[in-house]
Amino acid sequence: MRMVDLIIKKRNKESLTESEINWIINGYTEGKIPDYQVASLAMAICFQDMNVDERFYLTNAIVNSGDAIDLSNITGKTVDKHSTGGVGDKTTLALGPLVASCNVKLAKMSGRGLGHTGGTLDKLESIPGFNIELSEDDFIKQVNDIGIAVISQTKEICPADKKLYALRDVTGTVESIPLIAASVMSKKIASGAETIVLDVKVGSGAFMKDLEGAKELANAMVKIGKKFNRNISALITNMEEPLGEAVGNSLEVIEAIETLKGNGPREFEDLVLNLGAHILVNAGVAESIDTAIGILKTQIDNHEALNKFKEFIKAQGGNELVVNNYDLLPKAKYVYEVKANKTGYIKAINATAVGNYAMMLGAGRETKDSVIDLAVGLKIKKKIADYINEDSIIGEIHSNFELDEIKIEQFRQLFQTSDEKVIKTPLILGVVK
Amino acid sequence: MRMVDLIIKKRNKESLTESEINWIINGYTEGKIPDYQVASLAMAICFQDMNVDERFYLTNAIVNSGDAIDLSNITGKTVDKHSTGGVGDKTTLALGPLVASCNVKLAKMSGRGLGHTGGTLDKLESIPGFNIELSEDDFIKQVNDIGIAVISQTKEICPADKKLYALRDVTGTVESIPLIAASVMSKKIASGAETIVLDVKVGSGAFMKDLEGAKELANAMVKIGKKFNRNISALITNMEEPLGEAVGNSLEVIEAIETLKGNGPREFEDLVLNLGAHILVNAGVAESIDTAIGILKTQIDNHEALNKFKEFIKAQGGNELVVNNYDLLPKAKYVYEVKANKTGYIKAINATAVGNYAMMLGAGRETKDSVIDLAVGLKIKKKIADYINEDSIIGEIHSNFELDEIKIEQFRQLFQTSDEKVIKTPLILGVVK
Repeated sequence: MRMVDLIIKKRNKESLTESEINWIINGYTEGKIPDYQVASLAMAICFQDMNVDERFYLTNAIVNSGDAIDLSNITGKTVDKHSTGGVGDKTTLALGPLVASCNVKLAKMSGRGLGHTGGTLDKLESIPGFNIELSEDDFIKQVNDIGIAVISQTKEICPADKKLYALRDVTGTVESIPLIAASVMSKKIASGAETIVLDVKVGSGAFMKDLEGAKELANAMVKIGKKFNRNISALITNMEEPLGEAVGNSLEVIEAIETLKGNGPREFEDLVLNLGAHILVNAGVAESIDTAIGILKTQIDNHEALNKFKEFIKAQGGNELVVNNYDLLPKAKYVYEVKANKTGYIKAINATAVGNYAMMLGAGRETKDSVIDLAVGLKIKKKIADYINEDSIIGEIHSNFELDEIKIEQFRQLFQTSDEKVIKTPLILGVVK
Repeated sequence: MRMVDLIIKKRNKESLTESEINWIINGYTEGKIPDYQVASLAMAICFQDMNVDERFYLTNAIVNSGDAIDLSNITGKTVDKHSTGGVGDKTTLALGPLVASCNVKLAKMSGRGLGHTGGTLDKLESIPGFNIELSEDDFIKQVNDIGIAVISQTKEICPADKKLYALRDVTGTVESIPLIAASVMSKKIASGAETIVLDVKVGSGAFMKDLEGAKELANAMVKIGKKFNRNISALITNMEEPLGEAVGNSLEVIEAIETLKGNGPREFEDLVLNLGAHILVNAGVAESIDTAIGILKTQIDNHEALNKFKEFIKAQGGNELVVNNYDLLPKAKYVYEVKANKTGYIKAINATAVGNYAMMLGAGRETKDSVIDLAVGLKIKKKIADYINEDSIIGEIHSNFELDEIKIEQFRQLFQTSDEKVIKTPLILGVVK
C-alpha cells in the first residue's frame, strides 16, 4: 500500500476500505506516515467527505490506537455526556450528580485541554481537597458505591486523535464533519459507557456556527455511536450567548450547586434537565422524556441530587460543606458590578469575546503549562432579549487585579442592544437519535 | 501572517494576494513553513483552483526563489520550446538546429530528470565527444556565433519548484492545472527566452489524458507567459502512441538526423514543422504559419538545418561525422526484429508500456543515480491505423542483453489490433495563443 495512492483515491471521491484506514492510522500513530501526507489527505476529506462506513472505520482505528477504559466491572447502566464546548459550560457538574441520583452511573475520565475557562477537572479542583488522581480500581469501586466518579485520565486514550488534531489545527482541516465526528466519538467509545448523550452547540459562541452544520455533525456522531451499539442521542442546543450566568471555575461550581438546589438560571436548568432526560430514556430508566424530566425535577426538589453531589465531593476527598458555604471556594479580590450605561433590548452577547475576557482575567489555559486562577471570572446577569436601562447591573467581573475604566468599558461592549424587542431563539433546536 | 489562515482562505475559495503568495514560497524555500502546511494548501488548490493573477504571482515567486538566466547579451531573437513530455520525444534535437538555421536563437540550459529514456542532455551525450558542461560565457558566445547551444544547468533555477514538485509527487497533488502551469512556466521564465512555444501532449501516453484538461493547461500557461510579456503560444498534440519510431537515446538522435535530412517519420516531421512555424511567427521572423512551414521545409531541402546540427555538434566538441555515419553512435549488441504474429488494424499502442519496456532495457533513469545505456531502445515500425499481417515487422528491440521469447512476446503485446479499420486522430488537436 502506498499512502499517495490512498490520498489520490480520496481526492477522486472514492471510498477508503477498513484495512486502508487502519493502515493509515496505524502508520501515522507509529510515525511511519509523515505529517505532510496526512495533512493532504485531511484536506481531501474536507472536500470529498467520508461515507458512514469510512467514518466508523476511522473512529474505530483511532480507538484502537490507544487504551480503552474497561467499565465492565461496573454494575448497572454506565452513561456519558459530551458537549462540543462553549463558554460557561458547567453542565457535567450539575448533570452528573443529578443522573447518578437516578441510579445511572457516570464514570468519567477527563483530560484537561485548553480553553477560556478550565475544564471539568479544573472546576472540581476549585473545591478544597478534591482529588482527581484515583487509581483505576478506586475509580471503579467509587462508581459502584455511589454512582459517580470523575478523575484524570490514567491511560493513553486515542493517541492518534491527539496527533491528528494537532496537525489539523495548523493545516486548516479542523472544519470537516467526518473528522470532527471521528475525533469526538473515538474518545467517547474508548471511554466505555453504554449510554451516551451529546450536546452539539450551535451559534456565534460555538464551534458550529449554523444549524445545518450542527445537525449534520449530530447525525454523523449518532450514526457512528449506533454502529458501536451505543444507546446514543444528540441534542442540538443554542449557543448564541454564554450558558447560564457564570464563566470561571469556582463561579461555575457555585452555579452548578445552585442549580441542584433548584435556583439555577432557567436556561441552564432546562439544558441539564433535557440532557438528563435523554440519558434516563437512553439508559432505559424512564419511558419518555416527559416522565424523565418529572423524575429529575423530583430529585432536585427532594435534595437527592444535591446530596449526591455532596457524596461525590466527599468520596474524592473534597470538603462537601462548600455546597452551603461558598466562602470555602476560591474568591477573587475584586468584584466589579457593571452598570449598562445604556438602554434597550439586548440583541447579542458575543460569547467568544466573553470567553476571551475571562481568559484575560486568568480563568483559562492558553498553553498546556498555563496556571489557572480558579477564583476569577464573570457573571452575565442580563441575557439576550432582556430589557436594560442605564442603571441595570448587566454583570460582575471577579478579578484578582484592579481593572481600569477601559477594561470595564470593554466588558460593557460585550453586550449589544437594540431599540426593538428581541425574540430569543429556543434553547433546544433539535434532537437526533 | 499565519500559514493556517492562508490555507483556510484558499480552502474557502478566496484568492491569495501577491504578498501572501510571496510569503508562502519564500517561507517554504527557506524551510520556515513546514511540508505539512504546504501539502494541505496544495490539496486545497487542487479543489479551489487559482485565478489568473494568483497563477502569475505563484510563477513569479517560484522564479524569484532562485537564479534566472540572463540572455540579454544575445543579439537577435531568443526562443525556447517546452514539451509536457512523452515517450519518444526527441523534438528538441531536430527543432533546435532547424529554427537556429532560420536565424532565431535557442539558448537552452537543461536538467536531467527521470524518465523512460534520458533527457535531451543524455541524448546529445550519445554523440561521441559532445560536451554539455560549458561556462555561461562560452554558452552565450556560442549562441551568438551559431544560434544554438544546449548545456547542463549551471545555476540554481527555481529551487522552490524542485521542493514543491517533490512534495506534490507524494501528496497526491500533482494533477492541478495552476500548480502544473506555475511549475512549467517558472522554469521557462527563468530560462530567459523571449519567444516560447509549448507542446502540450494529450492522450494515453501523456500526462494529460483528455483534451479538455490539455486545453485548460495550455490556456493557463499561455496566459502566464503573456503576463511576463513573452511571445508565447501552445500546440495541443496527440500522444496516443509513441512519437515517431525511435525510443531510446542514440536511436532518437538518428531519427532526429533523418528528419533533418527529410527522411523522418511523417508525424514527427509534422510536429517539428508546426512547432518550428509557431516559433518563427512568434519571433516575428515569418508572417504566417504557412509561410513559416515553407521556410522550414526549404531549410531541410537545402541541408541548412542539417549543417546547423553539424555546426552545433562541432561547437560543443562532438564528432559531427555521426550525421553521415551512425556506426559512430553507441550500438546495442542485439537487435531483434519482431513480427506481428497476427493480422488486423493497429488500434492502440500503449505509450506508457512502451516507455516501461525501454526502461527495462536500460534506456531510462529510474532514480537520480541510475546509469543510462545510451545504445538501447525500441523502434516502433507500425503505428495506429496501420494494417499488419503475421509477417509484418512491427518493430525492433535494441538490447545489450539477450531476450527470451517471453520478453519478445511482451513487446508484441504493446500493440492492440482490431478487425475493423481504425481512423487516426490528427496530430495537432489545437492551438492556443
